[in-house]
Amino acid sequence: MKLTAEQRIQFDEAGYLFLPGCFSTDEAAVLQSAAAEVFALDRDEVWRESSGVARTAFASHTYNEAFRRLGRHPRLIEPVRQILGGPVYMHQYKINAKAAFDGEVWQWHQDYGTWKRDDDMPEPRAMNIAVFVDDVTAANGPLLFIPGSHTQGVIAAGHDLKTTSYPLWTLDRETVTRLAERGGCVAPTGPAGCVLLFSSLLVHASPPNISPFGRTIVYLSLCHVDNHIRKFQREPWIAHRDFTPIEPLADDCLAELIDRSGIQAAQ
Amino acid sequence: MKLTAEQRIQFDEAGYLFLPGCFSTDEAAVLQSAAAEVFALDRDEVWRESSGVARTAFASHTYNEAFRRLGRHPRLIEPVRQILGGPVYMHQYKINAKAAFDGEVWQWHQDYGTWKRDDDMPEPRAMNIAVFVDDVTAANGPLLFIPGSHTQGVIAAGHDLKTTSYPLWTLDRETVTRLAERGGCVAPTGPAGCVLLFSSLLVHASPPNISPFGRTIVYLSLCHVDNHIRKFQREPWIAHRDFTPIEPLADDCLAELIDRSGIQAAQ
Repeated sequence: MKLTAEQRIQFDEAGYLFLPGCFSTDEAAVLQSAAAEVFALDRDEVWRESSGVARTAFASHTYNEAFRRLGRHPRLIEPVRQILGGPVYMHQYKINAKAAFDGEVWQWHQDYGTWKRDDDMPEPRAMNIAVFVDDVTAANGPLLFIPGSHTQGVIAAGHDLKTTSYPLWTLDRETVTRLAERGGCVAPTGPAGCVLLFSSLLVHASPPNISPFGRTIVYLSLCHVDNHIRKFQREPWIAHRDFTPIEPLADDCLAELIDRSGIQAAQ
Repeated sequence: MKLTAEQRIQFDEAGYLFLPGCFSTDEAAVLQSAAAEVFALDRDEVWRESSGVARTAFASHTYNEAFRRLGRHPRLIEPVRQILGGPVYMHQYKINAKAAFDGEVWQWHQDYGTWKRDDDMPEPRAMNIAVFVDDVTAANGPLLFIPGSHTQGVIAAGHDLKTTSYPLWTLDRETVTRLAERGGCVAPTGPAGCVLLFSSLLVHASPPNISPFGRTIVYLSLCHVDNHIRKFQREPWIAHRDFTPIEPLADDCLAELIDRSGIQAAQ
């Protein structure tokens, strides 16, 4: 699982890279089942929308076996080590459930803006890699990216404490419009099992999900170990304090759970 | 502009038909320019979001030359006459601006549900034909359809007076979920100039537009002249009372305005 030179160039230019079919339908089914278990838990790490449905579960790699394995999966860790140029630790790990009908907006933001301001992460030597647990379509609240916006450094932002249950440093409309006039606005979509890598400086958002289908995505936020955070004001299960380099497991580490749970191929 | 037998079958089965490239880039530019003029008017027919930006302009075919011509365009009128099996009149005509950042949701509904309940239209011998004035993408609040849902007749609905500025008979979540489990949920997207025909019984919705790009669509709601409404409780510019059969203009009726206004091809 090495990125090609062409993929590296795509990532550098656009700020993201889409890897369709990175996980099989069966592997995605393991994650779907595990996400349902996690969202049913009554834990501090599981945050809910105002309606009560789950919005985000943090740090599930510490209390769920499938997500523990996903957090050390070579198809995720190796490309990120390659881009960041060395060993990485897990800065944040979340399962975002954009629930059918109720899934709310994430306003326009850069992740590194929050990591710098709230956690004092020295440099943007950190990035996200996202796994589609459900099919992501134009209908169910896909991620929206502004290609090329990662080249602008940390952009001025305001702390939005009102829009949703999750505090976020968000960009103003004039800035988003100016960036989109140059880079456009795209919504990468695809079936469960697709993977998206994106820069921690890439400006992104996602709209509410008014469709009858849920849309769960897992985000690993990986950081070069030399670039670990310096400020510990957020919960340790939101901004992690374990800077141990991640050693990837074997490529079949999720596939092993297919056999154990007896999940059959959907097709 | 006649639909083929295959297109008729597609429409009958799915409840909608997508016609890409129906209008040229230049013709779409005429409509973009005309829509901006209409939305700037201070008229009862122009409704606004809570933020003040335009949401819907009704009956612009009665006070704007480009939209007058579009309302009699043969590429729109002839396919609908073909499907409805005879002469048609204009029951409703609206320009829906899903404004950048501010464009709000349209909840799940059937148009005929409103036309029957509010206007006493006898039968669903009426339908919509929509023209994309802007590019419609996964990012800027596309129409969402539940294919096949038009086969279910008029579905029970509640009168939603709260969600947005426009009162609408909307379907409950259990119904939408049940229909989507069978038919799925699709979001037809494409560049400005594309056209969508859809049954007045097709269950549809559209999400908010959080993107930095506007997304304007014009909707002609055409009704067989024998099937005109019987109840006149809504404004005459919302539910029209002129049941005169529409005679299409020439195919170049919009193209003529390109020459007059001096708009050049974008490409």
